[in-house]
Amino acid sequence: MSSTAGQVIRCKAAVSWEAGKPLVIEEVDVAPPQKMEVRLKILFTSLCHTDVYFWEAKGQTPLFPRIFGHEAGGIVESVGEGVTDLQPGDHVLPMFTGECKECRHCKSTESNMCDLLRINTDRGVMIDDGKTRFSKNGQPIYHFLGTSTFSEYTVVHVGCVAKINPAAPLEKVCVLSCGISTGLGATLNVARPTKGSTVAIFGLGAVGLAAAEGARISGASRIIGIDLNPNRFEDAKKFGVTEFVNPKDHDKPVQQVLAEMTDGGVDRSVECTGNVDAMISAFECVHDGWGVAVLVGVPNKDDAFKTHPVNLLNERTLKGTFFGNYKPRSDIPSVVEKYMNKELELDKFITHHVGFSEINKAFDLMLKGEGLRCIINMEA
Amino acid sequence: MSSTAGQVIRCKAAVSWEAGKPLVIEEVDVAPPQKMEVRLKILFTSLCHTDVYFWEAKGQTPLFPRIFGHEAGGIVESVGEGVTDLQPGDHVLPMFTGECKECRHCKSTESNMCDLLRINTDRGVMIDDGKTRFSKNGQPIYHFLGTSTFSEYTVVHVGCVAKINPAAPLEKVCVLSCGISTGLGATLNVARPTKGSTVAIFGLGAVGLAAAEGARISGASRIIGIDLNPNRFEDAKKFGVTEFVNPKDHDKPVQQVLAEMTDGGVDRSVECTGNVDAMISAFECVHDGWGVAVLVGVPNKDDAFKTHPVNLLNERTLKGTFFGNYKPRSDIPSVVEKYMNKELELDKFITHHVGFSEINKAFDLMLKGEGLRCIINMEA
Repeated sequence: MSSTAGQVIRCKAAVSWEAGKPLVIEEVDVAPPQKMEVRLKILFTSLCHTDVYFWEAKGQTPLFPRIFGHEAGGIVESVGEGVTDLQPGDHVLPMFTGECKECRHCKSTESNMCDLLRINTDRGVMIDDGKTRFSKNGQPIYHFLGTSTFSEYTVVHVGCVAKINPAAPLEKVCVLSCGISTGLGATLNVARPTKGSTVAIFGLGAVGLAAAEGARISGASRIIGIDLNPNRFEDAKKFGVTEFVNPKDHDKPVQQVLAEMTDGGVDRSVECTGNVDAMISAFECVHDGWGVAVLVGVPNKDDAFKTHPVNLLNERTLKGTFFGNYKPRSDIPSVVEKYMNKELELDKFITHHVGFSEINKAFDLMLKGEGLRCIINMEA
Repeated sequence: MSSTAGQVIRCKAAVSWEAGKPLVIEEVDVAPPQKMEVRLKILFTSLCHTDVYFWEAKGQTPLFPRIFGHEAGGIVESVGEGVTDLQPGDHVLPMFTGECKECRHCKSTESNMCDLLRINTDRGVMIDDGKTRFSKNGQPIYHFLGTSTFSEYTVVHVGCVAKINPAAPLEKVCVLSCGISTGLGATLNVARPTKGSTVAIFGLGAVGLAAAEGARISGASRIIGIDLNPNRFEDAKKFGVTEFVNPKDHDKPVQQVLAEMTDGGVDRSVECTGNVDAMISAFECVHDGWGVAVLVGVPNKDDAFKTHPVNLLNERTLKGTFFGNYKPRSDIPSVVEKYMNKELELDKFITHHVGFSEINKAFDLMLKGEGLRCIINMEA
């Protein structure tokens, strides 16, 4: 056992005191892990759109003060009562959605939407006792996604921790906690293109490029990127994207442009923007008879997906995915292995590095749309 | 070679001279099969809604005089130039949609929507020369679906003929030419329920009951039938339907009723009505994480399928199917074998029998909604 086990740890965390205001590095108290919880020392974390979205708190109920962060790599510091799967020293990725291994979803081979630990963006407390493990001068600080990785130490439910190969570099594989796995799994687990097929990717941000990386790994011969920002195409080539379509360059619907480019439609499409019109295009651009469209991007809550049913009857398939259909504890370790054996390329997703004290720079980069992933080194 | 090979055959056919008017049994001339065509002696045919729909000709361009009929069993009488797969005496089912075995769809393991011979309800002629093989006193009579089985002899493209086990009773397996295979395949090939699962079937006509039969064969433990006509439930029990829901009996949407009955949703649903609201219910009633909804029923051309994209993102799958995803020549012979080895029950679908001279009675039964399949014996 580490010497800190069972003790409150005082450490640095980047606290969001108010929606949209710069985070403040504070000394916070991190309580010991309770039943079925583990306390992690975070070494590297990265910034994902979801952090920014909830930090901006436009349209959701604001919950502050809060510690954001959910893409990270760390080491188990200590474990709470009942934890047998993990021990201090284990290398892990905290996960924003969990796997209890007991519920119908966890027992189904098809689902990763755990009933107990499924993503909950509104909850700011631990599920065991409804309390926070973070505080400053006695004032509770809310958790985010059960991970709150913008802290040197954090407490996470054991069901939200993937134990990975200790040889894997945490400063790289930390990006597998969320967005990259989401896009990659959407292609590898759900769209499942066969070798030589044509894949359309809607939206060339980090998730879309990870979907393209999945298509590259699958041996797709044509990977068509669709984005409103033409500047993204040059970088997208590194991810295997072979052709680029900007819907703004055409007078006709992009699904028609794609059908004409591909003799009737693409074999697979992956939608990573969350724009409902892009979703409809992504569905309608797949070939009849065998086309599969996979929706990844999260829409506005009032959006309606709309299509003529004949598009379905002509043997197209429409599927949605959450976290690339990966079961966080069971499957993510094998994604890390794909990186270790050089099948999966991760370095190209990492475009920036900052020290923890400069975490607000990572927010600035994302707000400006610069780069893909910014790694935050907790020890710098 | 039969003595009639190469000759015009004069025989009886039930001719539709006008939309919605009783068919008239006429002596017609049936020309010999041309390149890649075969001439069949039809022994049994049955009546399907599609025949009635195009006979009524409400909303389509009427094409008369025409010989309807597309569910049938027969024997090859003679073959045209280039036909090597079939010979006189072979037992066959003519098929309303074909399989050329050469196009992208036929070469894909996933599609049965042949580019050359895909169903075409508007065409009334043979594809080789754009002419009919039927005439009366020199007046051409149009074909229907390339099959026109309401005739003692008919000419069909070789790609629209499934060669089957000669031991199979044609008066039973003739129903596999269309509706029964459509429903059965929707479940067995597309929805693919696992043993013990819960399946909802929307619409308990012949196609829906065939979908239920597929669920029964798959070992589903609960098969929930949904229909606006409560009289259908009693008969549906024979097809394995265990529970019945009439949407009219509830104040809330039927998808909500089903979710409450099944702890969150059914595992699979199959929609066989063609009503767009039923399609939406069939999709929204499947469980998140793993639910698959399969659309079979053909909608009106102005209908829009509409749902909130989150229903998809929560890992539901929406698929449509055409002819149960069966490739007509490659797969239908094995469906006949399922009947022969008693895995598939067909007799319960056959509720009426008439002689060919009484074919209009079969139309009356269908218009009144009585029974499932009426077999028409061409020799009685």
